[in-house]
Parts: sequence; C-alpha cells; structure tokens
Amino acid sequence: MTLQELKLEVVNANKELPKHGLVKFSWGNVGAIDRDKGIVVIKPVGMPYQDLTVDNVAVTDLDGNLIDGAWEPSVDLPIHLELFAGFPGINAIVHTHSTYATMWAQARRDIPCFGTTHADYFYGTVPCTRELTEAEINGDFERATGRSIVERFEGIDPCAVPGVLVASHGVFTWGKDVWEAVHSAVVIEEIAKMAIGTLLLSESASPVPQVLLDRHYRRKHGPDAYFTHDDYGNGEVSTK
Amino acid sequence: MTLQELKLEVVNANKELPKHGLVKFSWGNVGAIDRDKGIVVIKPVGMPYQDLTVDNVAVTDLDGNLIDGAWEPSVDLPIHLELFAGFPGINAIVHTHSTYATMWAQARRDIPCFGTTHADYFYGTVPCTRELTEAEINGDFERATGRSIVERFEGIDPCAVPGVLVASHGVFTWGKDVWEAVHSAVVIEEIAKMAIGTLLLSESASPVPQVLLDRHYRRKHGPDAYFTHDDYGNGEVSTK
Amino acid sequence: MTLQELKLEVVNANKELPKHGLVKFSWGNVGAIDRDKGIVVIKPVGMPYQDLTVDNVAVTDLDGNLIDGAWEPSVDLPIHLELFAGFPGINAIVHTHSTYATMWAQARRDIPCFGTTHADYFYGTVPCTRELTEAEINGDFERATGRSIVERFEGIDPCAVPGVLVASHGVFTWGKDVWEAVHSAVVIEEIAKMAIGTLLLSESASPVPQVLLDRHYRRKHGPDAYFTHDDYGNGEVSTK
Amino acid sequence: MTLQELKLEVVNANKELPKHGLVKFSWGNVGAIDRDKGIVVIKPVGMPYQDLTVDNVAVTDLDGNLIDGAWEPSVDLPIHLELFAGFPGINAIVHTHSTYATMWAQARRDIPCFGTTHADYFYGTVPCTRELTEAEINGDFERATGRSIVERFEGIDPCAVPGVLVASHGVFTWGKDVWEAVHSAVVIEEIAKMAIGTLLLSESASPVPQVLLDRHYRRKHGPDAYFTHDDYGNGEVSTK
Repeated sequence: MTLQELKLEVVNANKELPKHGLVKFSWGNVGAIDRDKGIVVIKPVGMPYQDLTVDNVAVTDLDGNLIDGAWEPSVDLPIHLELFAGFPGINAIVHTHSTYATMWAQARRDIPCFGTTHADYFYGTVPCTRELTEAEINGDFERATGRSIVERFEGIDPCAVPGVLVASHGVFTWGKDVWEAVHSAVVIEEIAKMAIGTLLLSESASPVPQVLLDRHYRRKHGPDAYFTHDDYGNGEVSTK
Repeated sequence: MTLQELKLEVVNANKELPKHGLVKFSWGNVGAIDRDKGIVVIKPVGMPYQDLTVDNVAVTDLDGNLIDGAWEPSVDLPIHLELFAGFPGINAIVHTHSTYATMWAQARRDIPCFGTTHADYFYGTVPCTRELTEAEINGDFERATGRSIVERFEGIDPCAVPGVLVASHGVFTWGKDVWEAVHSAVVIEEIAKMAIGTLLLSESASPVPQVLLDRHYRRKHGPDAYFTHDDYGNGEVSTK
Repeated sequence: MTLQELKLEVVNANKELPKHGLVKFSWGNVGAIDRDKGIVVIKPVGMPYQDLTVDNVAVTDLDGNLIDGAWEPSVDLPIHLELFAGFPGINAIVHTHSTYATMWAQARRDIPCFGTTHADYFYGTVPCTRELTEAEINGDFERATGRSIVERFEGIDPCAVPGVLVASHGVFTWGKDVWEAVHSAVVIEEIAKMAIGTLLLSESASPVPQVLLDRHYRRKHGPDAYFTHDDYGNGEVSTK
Repeated sequence: MTLQELKLEVVNANKELPKHGLVKFSWGNVGAIDRDKGIVVIKPVGMPYQDLTVDNVAVTDLDGNLIDGAWEPSVDLPIHLELFAGFPGINAIVHTHSTYATMWAQARRDIPCFGTTHADYFYGTVPCTRELTEAEINGDFERATGRSIVERFEGIDPCAVPGVLVASHGVFTWGKDVWEAVHSAVVIEEIAKMAIGTLLLSESASPVPQVLLDRHYRRKHGPDAYFTHDDYGNGEVSTK
C-alpha cells in the first residue's frame, strides 16, 4: 500500500467514527502504521472529521516527529506509538470515548463475556487497565497510558482480544487494518451496552463457559474456521 | 408464490432488519421455506444487507445443500432447518442480536408478559432456552441450538409465542411469512426494553393475569377476533 | 371548524406520533370530538400512518357508529368515547404505547413530579389506573378501560393533569385540541424517562414541594400566567 | 463584534440545541451579553427554533427591558442576567432540560468527575444548587434561581466549571462565547449519561484523583497547555 493509499484509509476510517455514533465533536481518532516504511498516519488534533483529507492528515515517524501534514498529530499519538511497539501483530488503532464502553472504563471494570456477540470478536474478557501512578500522570502521561495497556495484556493475545478499556478514560481497539479496528470499536460499544443490561437483569450473571468461547472464536479464527466471509475491505465493514 | 417471488420477499425482509435498528453490520438474517418445493431461501453469510439481491440470495434444499446463490448460506442455516422441521406451522424465521432482547438472552431469563404490548403478539412468557452441553457445543453446534429451541417449546404453541431467546446468544422469531417474522422481531426488542424498565421500577412486578392475556390474544386470534386489520403484506409491516 | 378541517387535524396529528418516536407500526391513535355536531374523528384500526388521509379517516357518532370512512375505527374508540363523556373540558385524545411511559404503566406506578419539566405540563402526579376486574376484562373491555380512567380522576382536574397511565397497557393524553394532546404525549414520555433516571440516582427522591408545583403551573395557567407564548397551532407544536 | 453579528451568533447557537438533541419543543435557550454596550441578546419565549431570525431575536438592557425584537424574551432572562452579573468572565449562557443532566438535577445530586471526558471540560464536580425557599419561589422566582447558582459557586471558578445543575429543574452552561456554552451543554449531557452507567456498574465508584484532574485540565488550560487546537469558532464546534 502506498502512503497515499494509507492516508486515504486513515481519513475514511476516521470519518466512520461519527457515522457509527462513537464520538461527539472530535473525541476520537484512528491511526495506522506502515511497518516497512516506519511511519504512522493519524488524525490531527482537534480537527473536525468532515474537514479531514489526505492533504491534512498527520504523518509521523516512529518517534512521533511530524513528517507531513498541516496540523499537529492527535495528543494521543504516544499511546498509538506504544501500542504499535508493544503489539507487533496490529497495524491500526482506534480511540474513542464511546458512551457505554466509557461507563465500564469509569467503573474500572473488565467486561465479562456474557454471550456470543462478544465471543465472536473478543476471545474472553475485555480488560480494563490499572490506574496510573501519580508519577506516571505527572510524567510522560500519554506514553504511560500506552505502556499500561501493553502491561495489561501480559498473558493475553492482543490479536484475540482486540480492545481495552483505559481506566477513568475511554476505549482503544485495534486490528490488522483500520477496518478491523473500526469494526472492533463498534462491537465493543454494543457489547458494553448489552453487558450493562445483562447485569441489571441478573446481578450474578456468569460469563459463557470456556467451551462456548472456544467454539465461537474458532468458528471465525484459526485452521478450523468456517465463518470466514467477513467483509472488512471498505468503510461498510460488516460480518456474520 | 414462485421461487423468484420468495427470493424477493427474503431479500426485502432482510433489508428491513437494519431499517428497524435490529442489527449492526450483518448480525442477523431472514430465511423462508417453500414447503411444497422443499427449499429454503436465506441470507448469504457475511453479505452486507445493501448488497443483497435476488441474484445472490442463497437457496438450499432441506438438508442445507446449496442449490442456488453466489455465496454460502448463513452459518445459522442449520438452526433455521431445525425450526422449520420442528414447527410445521411457520414459514419464515428471523435471527438477530438486537440489543435489549440479547440482554435477556445473556441473563438467561424468560421475558414475563408485563403488559398488553407483549400480550398482543406473544401469548405469555417469551422463553429462554437452556444452555447447551459441552458435547452439543463441540458437536453439531448450530443443529443443537435449533434443537434446544424446539425442545424449549414442548407444551408451548410456537404460533402463539412466535419467538425465543437463545441463552447467551440472541433471539429468533418466526411467522407464517417473512413479514410476520420481521414484525415479531421488532416487537420482541421493544417488549424486552419495556420489561427491563418495568423491573427497574418494580423489582417484584407480576405478569398480567391470565384473563387479560386471554382477552388480548383473542382480540387478534381465533374465531372471536375483532382486531383483524393487521397489515403484514409488505415491508411496511404495521398493526393495531 | 368544519368536519373537513377536523379530519385534516386528526390526520396530521396522527402522523406526528411516529415523527416523535412515540409509536412503532400503528401502535397509537389520535381522536377528536366535535361536541356541537356530536361526532368523533379517529384513526382507522391498523392503518399505517403514511396511508392516512382525510378520505379514509374514521368518523363516528357518539355511540361509536361509523358514519364516514373507508375502514373500521380504532378498537380503542370506546375508550375515547368514555373519556370525551367523562371529561367535558377536552376535545382530543392521544393513545400510545410509548416506551418509557409504558414501563411505568407496566410497573403500575404513578409518575411523581420530580421537576419543573413535569410541573410545567402536569399539575402533580401522573396517575396510573387500577387493574380491571375479571368481569370487566371479559365484558366490554375497552369501555371498562375508559371508565377506569375517569374513575381514577375523581378529585383530579383532567385539564390540569392531561394524561394517565393505564395499568399493564400504555398511556392516554388529552387536551383542548389535537396539538395539546400530542404535545402532552411527547412530554409524558420524556418525563417518564427522566423520572426513571431520577430514581436510579436517588431511590428515595421526593417530589417537588407543593409551592414549586403551584408556581410553575401558575406561570402558564390561570389569571397570573406570564409564560403564555406557547405555540400549539400546528404540527410543529412547541412551548417554553 | 457588532450587534448584528452577536444576534446572528445567538440565533445560530439556539438552532444548535435541537441539532444536538438537547431540547424538545422550545425547552431551552441561548443568551449572550455585550458587556461594552450593556445589552443582552436572547431567544424569545416560546418561539420554535426554526422560526428564529436576527429580526425577531430579543435584545434587552441589563435590567431586562426589551430594546429590540418582535416577541418577549425568554422567561429565563432574569437567570441569565444574574449569571452575567455574578460571573464576569462569561459572555454566553445555554439553558436546557437535556434528559440525563435533568435526571441528576431532579435527584439533586452533583455529578462526580468519573473520568477524563468530564475532566477535559469541567475541573471537578458539576455542582447542583440547593432547593429554593418558599419565599424565593413565591417571590422573584427566576432571579432567585439565578442567585442560587451564583451562591453555589462560592469557592468554585465558573470558568473552570462551566455548568451547573439547578435542583428539580435542568441545566445551565456558559462560556466566553456562545460556542463554548453550547459545547459545554453537549458535554454535560454526555457525562451525565456516562456517570449514571458508571454508578450502575459500581455503586461506590470514586472520582478520579486530583492529580489526574489537574493533568487533564492543564493539558487544555493555562500556561502549560499543549492540547490547544479546539475549534469553537462556528456552529460545528469540535474539540480534542
């Protein structure tokens, strides 16, 4: 993929966020990495989605230095850089403060896997990060946020659980490309909402058993997958 | 009805699901049976609703073998086949993961009949299936799901209660044709939402008495029906 | 107002119900009375709102006999007739199963007046009717429903509290004309939603004091009203 | 800014309220002050948003006397005047009964700062006013409402916490111009909703620590701000 093509993907994927009701104002961003070229393309800070074009999207190197673009990159860029460094299998990241996922992040609770809607996309619990220390908050805050996410995935495959809740903040999702990352951002918001209702109806609701989790995940992933017609190749991402 | 007409009905009914806000991406499907011809028409797996046409909708025989269509049928086809076999009075099925109905499914609770909105369409409790065994999950999973629904309706008339919650999964509804099935999918989502609010306001809310259930059901069904102007004959399904 | 004008008002007011998100399918109706002519105009049963015109809207006498119209009147006509008979100050009625108001109806709870949004339109608690007896349900059911509403307003001025919850059913509102009645239907749904959230945040929330209720009601009604620019004269009903 | 320009800003800002889903009918208003000229521009009472123009918007002096406009000013004008007098740093005010913020107002609870969505705009708790006394309610009610807001901000910087819940009523927000005030009205509704969900998931959820509150606030405000690309300059207000 050329840089121009990657820019266009990042531009279009950012514009998906308001379409799916995941953001107010410009509260969210999509970034993508070209690992061969060593560059990251990301939404500029504070730019309205409708004004975003391939000519003003921000391009940086892996240290976050602006290479191309008319505006500063998102202040969340250091979080993206930490995730791209810590999760070699991913190439795109979405950040939002979507309403229901943020409720879980603010309650500092993991989202249990209560059903197959969840299990089809997230292989088990969606984790919530720990709170940052005072030193982390007063230091390189965004870097520390990114590192706390990578730390939280010790023992968890980020390709099997493509999203995280950041305590007291919001949600990050990712994927092999921007469409997978956007897709997961939509899914996590929906399962966050469903899970709240589930707990209202059954305070002691238990997650699905491991065998069901395995079955659903393997329907779509790995050598025995038979549910493989997912269509992620454009802005009209769709599946199942 | 010709096969072409049935295909068109299935195509149009599938397109109703996103219009009614019952699905995200392609999380849902409509299927219909022509019992005389021994064929089933169903949404192809993973196809975006807007791309669905009479030329790519999937047609199978009653064993699930693809007869016609450009793409594989929905992975939920075996569930449809079990329901068509187990419930001889129905000719169409809708499957969704609609938000509020899925909350109930994930909480593994039946929806009590708290009011006439429910009673007008579902003659009593909307049941939730049992959880599948490990053997069922690891075996012919979708068939077992379908069989667990039919099993749950032992002693319940599926024409009087045209829908079910599948534990930890989602919702299926059905009817004499696709419009009735879509109609029930809309109704079940709405009564699922209303019932959650009812319980928030009155934890010990009791279902309507049997006499009210009977009255409302018989206003619309059976020899004494006087509320019979329901208009199901097109995509603009409407009633009452 | 000529009969033709009244028909047009009823047609247009019915079409407001889906615009305000108060109904699914045709779950709701507006009716109006011309007390001089002794006739009632009401939505036909089961007719989709978009098909409703001055040529097919139902016209009946005060005994409910169809005088004009292409279709049977709503099955709720007897409820309208009882309310028009019992509440001489009203000329129009709206019935819906709007989601949040119906939650209260199904919980069989009155809506307390928790704030000025409520107090501006309803002078105190919005009452919920008692449950009907078995004899009433098996007898002239709709008439009995209407009578139970009038009975519930013993000691309450229906012009000061222009709406009611019908136990296990839905909501009725009314007014001097169809626009007031539609307006109250929108308001009652909104205050029903707000009141549920209020109770979630404060289980023992108390209603506003009588003095505040009086002040807000008298800002808009009676000889000292100074908040009198309400615009009810067309489909774009608005106030405050 | 000329008076004509200020009128246009107030007109356009008022029209933002229904676009953001913050009002039903005409339940809300935007007002702005020109401190040099000693005039206030505000929505006329009861006027539908779509009818509002620079030719009918109300203009008053600082005592509330109508100087220009085709209709009476909003009955909430005295509240605006008290806030403009009490908070010298603000130039625009928005009042709404937006659904989730009003739930908090009706529960008479402050909104704790549960996350960075809140911290980015409100430096700590969003306060709720005390209830008015009987004398205040029966006296100059709107003035007393305004004064109770100013009183509540004793010890709180209204420029750092640009909004308030009015007990049993609704919400007011403000800013240096109408766009900031509208922006805060959107934010407060969203954080009110998120905070309810947070409490449902964690009854004893604690606010973010002071150090995080400081960090987020200082990212956007004061000499060390580095998140400064907010775009408030038009109706398409956006940030982050």
